[in-house]
Amino acid sequence: MKIIIDAMGGDNAPRVPVEAAARAACELDVNIVLVGKRDIIQSELKRHKYPAGRVEIINADEVITNHEEPAKAVKRKRNSSIVIAARMLKSGDGDAMLSMGNTGAVLAAGTLIVGRIRGIIRPALAAVLPSKTGPKLLLDAGANANCKPENLVQFAVMGSLYMKNIMGISDPSVGLMSIGEEEGKGNNLTKAAYPLIKAAPVNFIGNIEGRDVMEGTADVMTCDGFVGNVILKAIEGMGSFVSGALKSMFTNGIAAKIGAICVMKGLDKFKSEIDYREYGGAPLLGVKGTVIKGHGSSDAKAAFSAIVQAKKAVETDLTEKIKNSLPDTDAKEDME
Amino acid sequence: MKIIIDAMGGDNAPRVPVEAAARAACELDVNIVLVGKRDIIQSELKRHKYPAGRVEIINADEVITNHEEPAKAVKRKRNSSIVIAARMLKSGDGDAMLSMGNTGAVLAAGTLIVGRIRGIIRPALAAVLPSKTGPKLLLDAGANANCKPENLVQFAVMGSLYMKNIMGISDPSVGLMSIGEEEGKGNNLTKAAYPLIKAAPVNFIGNIEGRDVMEGTADVMTCDGFVGNVILKAIEGMGSFVSGALKSMFTNGIAAKIGAICVMKGLDKFKSEIDYREYGGAPLLGVKGTVIKGHGSSDAKAAFSAIVQAKKAVETDLTEKIKNSLPDTDAKEDME
Repeated sequence: MKIIIDAMGGDNAPRVPVEAAARAACELDVNIVLVGKRDIIQSELKRHKYPAGRVEIINADEVITNHEEPAKAVKRKRNSSIVIAARMLKSGDGDAMLSMGNTGAVLAAGTLIVGRIRGIIRPALAAVLPSKTGPKLLLDAGANANCKPENLVQFAVMGSLYMKNIMGISDPSVGLMSIGEEEGKGNNLTKAAYPLIKAAPVNFIGNIEGRDVMEGTADVMTCDGFVGNVILKAIEGMGSFVSGALKSMFTNGIAAKIGAICVMKGLDKFKSEIDYREYGGAPLLGVKGTVIKGHGSSDAKAAFSAIVQAKKAVETDLTEKIKNSLPDTDAKEDME
Repeated sequence: MKIIIDAMGGDNAPRVPVEAAARAACELDVNIVLVGKRDIIQSELKRHKYPAGRVEIINADEVITNHEEPAKAVKRKRNSSIVIAARMLKSGDGDAMLSMGNTGAVLAAGTLIVGRIRGIIRPALAAVLPSKTGPKLLLDAGANANCKPENLVQFAVMGSLYMKNIMGISDPSVGLMSIGEEEGKGNNLTKAAYPLIKAAPVNFIGNIEGRDVMEGTADVMTCDGFVGNVILKAIEGMGSFVSGALKSMFTNGIAAKIGAICVMKGLDKFKSEIDYREYGGAPLLGVKGTVIKGHGSSDAKAAFSAIVQAKKAVETDLTEKIKNSLPDTDAKEDME
């Protein structure tokens, strides 16, 4: 299996993607293609030991930064690492693609270059979130700001397949993000989506609310990309606030440091519960290949988890299963 | 000043509303009307010392529970504590109304009985949220699941007046909740609202994102009631998760208890930062009177804060200021 990694994407590129690639080459049964500026990647690679035959570099002269307008950048920067990685995946020169770069550009490259699965109206970015009862999937987390009820149904189906195949949950529960538990509660979009999801081949448990994100009430949470992105960032913001508060609480003076030692076990447990790094990145579901968007601030541990995640998606043939989940492809194609 | 309190609303009614009422009668220069089942309130009141002339009971035989369909319940249960409280406010037999009961019923009573301010298309429930830089206002937090761009503008104006008058912020900044900082980012609703808010008489700082809630980037965050409610509950859920985790971290064994003592100062600071109870309840802005919805799980401290908040709203004539903020009342009335 060959995994294509955008070596130029992310706050700590190319250090983090290269380090994760070297580790993956050592520990996992995968080959890695690092896409980006050859010289920089080469000198970064020298800092690691890895089986040489397992890591390949494909040069890309351009880089799409976080400040560029995604769709435009993908169209113009034909030699950027994201675009070359997506073209390689499209043409079969690799089995999965991972980027920690510009989210919009990864989405655009996934949709425009790798291409939608026939029958999927809109691919969705799926975020893996921590909860009291383990990792859960929220989608769409930002690929589609405006959605139709049919989109939310497809998100529910794709999300269920993801949780089943990648997370090993046998019959993932699906919740429709809304404001009130009863069927009649919500906005026009969720009210229209409710009966459609109920009729879909998923384990639908009805409406869920914002507080159910941390409760972990549903394995899959379906919502439009505006709502999903706001939730994701609100939870991330709260998480970083809490981490910062804990840090200052436990480092401010000698007593605080003793306190930290006293509660170390509980503190470690808590930190691991809100730690995203073990869950990998956000898969773009509904495109013709495995595309993972890693968090921009990923460290090597998070990037490595994303490689593990990509590998699982390929091994379990997730893309093919999403394709096969569409009962009436032609009809849905017409709806676009 | 006379503040009308629904003595039957909330998870801990009538204990909490009665305790807060007694405290307010002692400490604040206000008269209190407790609305609800006279016998129960009377026996609850006996547990407190307070200036007798300052607390009055108005009997209400019915109670609207949390499980009832709000609009129907308000129409049918004419003798419920919420309905009687709202009717008293409407007829001038009190200056403000506070309920910790069924949110939908409080909104319905506020809108249908107290009545909209002429020119306000939709009243909004405004939630006071903690942030790194102090309390901020999020509205609409759930009164209007479907909004038009004009609603978001009025929310921004009303929210600014609230933060100025109740929180003492001279020129409150307003952020439009979206998914991306640039003007062009967001969904159809926020894209249409952006130029309208920019042209409104508020200190508009542009789009904000989910992470800005805890950052405290804007004093006023405007959004539709679906998005606002999801944010509010997601943040609450995260807060309760964190509180629970801290509790178990610091009470699990002797070492943990020593740890708690070591970091007590930092822990108290952190707890107070995510403590909602000091900020009072959620005002329903845009109706012809001061209506405050307290959190269902309010304790006496939170309920007392809500009374303080109601008093400030009356003293600063917030309702009148909202009325006067409407430049073209007749035109807006036509838009409904």
